[in-house]
Amino acid sequence: MPHVTIPAGLPPGVPGLMQYRPETGRPLSSLAEVLLRTPNTLSPADRELIAGYVSALNECRFCTYTHTEVSAQQHPEGRPLVDKAMADPNSAPISPKLKALLAIATAVQGSGKNVTEELVTKARDEGATDTEIHDAVLIAAAFCMFNRYCDGLAAIVPPDPASYVPMAKNIIQNGYSTCAS
Amino acid sequence: MPHVTIPAGLPPGVPGLMQYRPETGRPLSSLAEVLLRTPNTLSPADRELIAGYVSALNECRFCTYTHTEVSAQQHPEGRPLVDKAMADPNSAPISPKLKALLAIATAVQGSGKNVTEELVTKARDEGATDTEIHDAVLIAAAFCMFNRYCDGLAAIVPPDPASYVPMAKNIIQNGYSTCAS
Repeated sequence: MPHVTIPAGLPPGVPGLMQYRPETGRPLSSLAEVLLRTPNTLSPADRELIAGYVSALNECRFCTYTHTEVSAQQHPEGRPLVDKAMADPNSAPISPKLKALLAIATAVQGSGKNVTEELVTKARDEGATDTEIHDAVLIAAAFCMFNRYCDGLAAIVPPDPASYVPMAKNIIQNGYSTCAS
Repeated sequence: MPHVTIPAGLPPGVPGLMQYRPETGRPLSSLAEVLLRTPNTLSPADRELIAGYVSALNECRFCTYTHTEVSAQQHPEGRPLVDKAMADPNSAPISPKLKALLAIATAVQGSGKNVTEELVTKARDEGATDTEIHDAVLIAAAFCMFNRYCDGLAAIVPPDPASYVPMAKNIIQNGYSTCAS
């Protein structure tokens, strides 16, 4: 049961919290929209994978299920590719650039101070731009917030991965702004 | 030196990053504005103290200096009170409700899963409302993001606490939205 009284009828997880307190829900959903969906040199599928990967490191089930599903539905190679990347990015058939950005995101999950010059140089050597490095750091940092927000208020987490499929479809069709309203 | 090229003339710390990438800076500054400044039953000074306290736990010097200074300038008892609360909230002359909310924020800093029913019940027993509990969790979670964002990109951190005094004055007068523009 959530630590605060969420009115009946609100969705589970972070979207329910966003609607419970729309004053904070609006900037939170705008941030997710820009970071994960606004057209960019990193595909939405890759950015969602970073979000899902950090959420798994933080053991936040709601965000892990949601963002790996949103990634899988948008990735040309679908769920098998996302599952491989989640299990071990280094041996997965993803680009060296995405591997390097996932290594930066992994560092950020522990502490911002863990991001070394070496990790950044490696990403740059694999073709990452300043904006991609910035966004990888901020996606990882933002999910250190979303994960704590979700679990810190004990938001409702549907246990069945299948229930994340229509939620992900809705996000892909309508964006994160609909989560907050 | 920051991990990405911040144009000359931008401010240090998180405001510089917000201006470097205004697409994400705008929702980030809106979030800070609502969480820390929008009138509420918790005073801005108390909310800034929660932000500063979590930033110290994350060892983020820029955010610790900034938010303890913003808190001190707005607190009737000023810097001495804030210093006592930062050193040891439990023995500091702050309200039992704020102590209980700081205990929740401390839990969130480790992991959202560390927020126990007991911590929430204690806050409620000391008079905390659902909104105050929600906001304490989200302030703590948000600073787990801001701290990682700042240090993860190695943003410029002025070493002298005195340089945070005018920055804090500006935030108090003009709000966080001016940080992003």
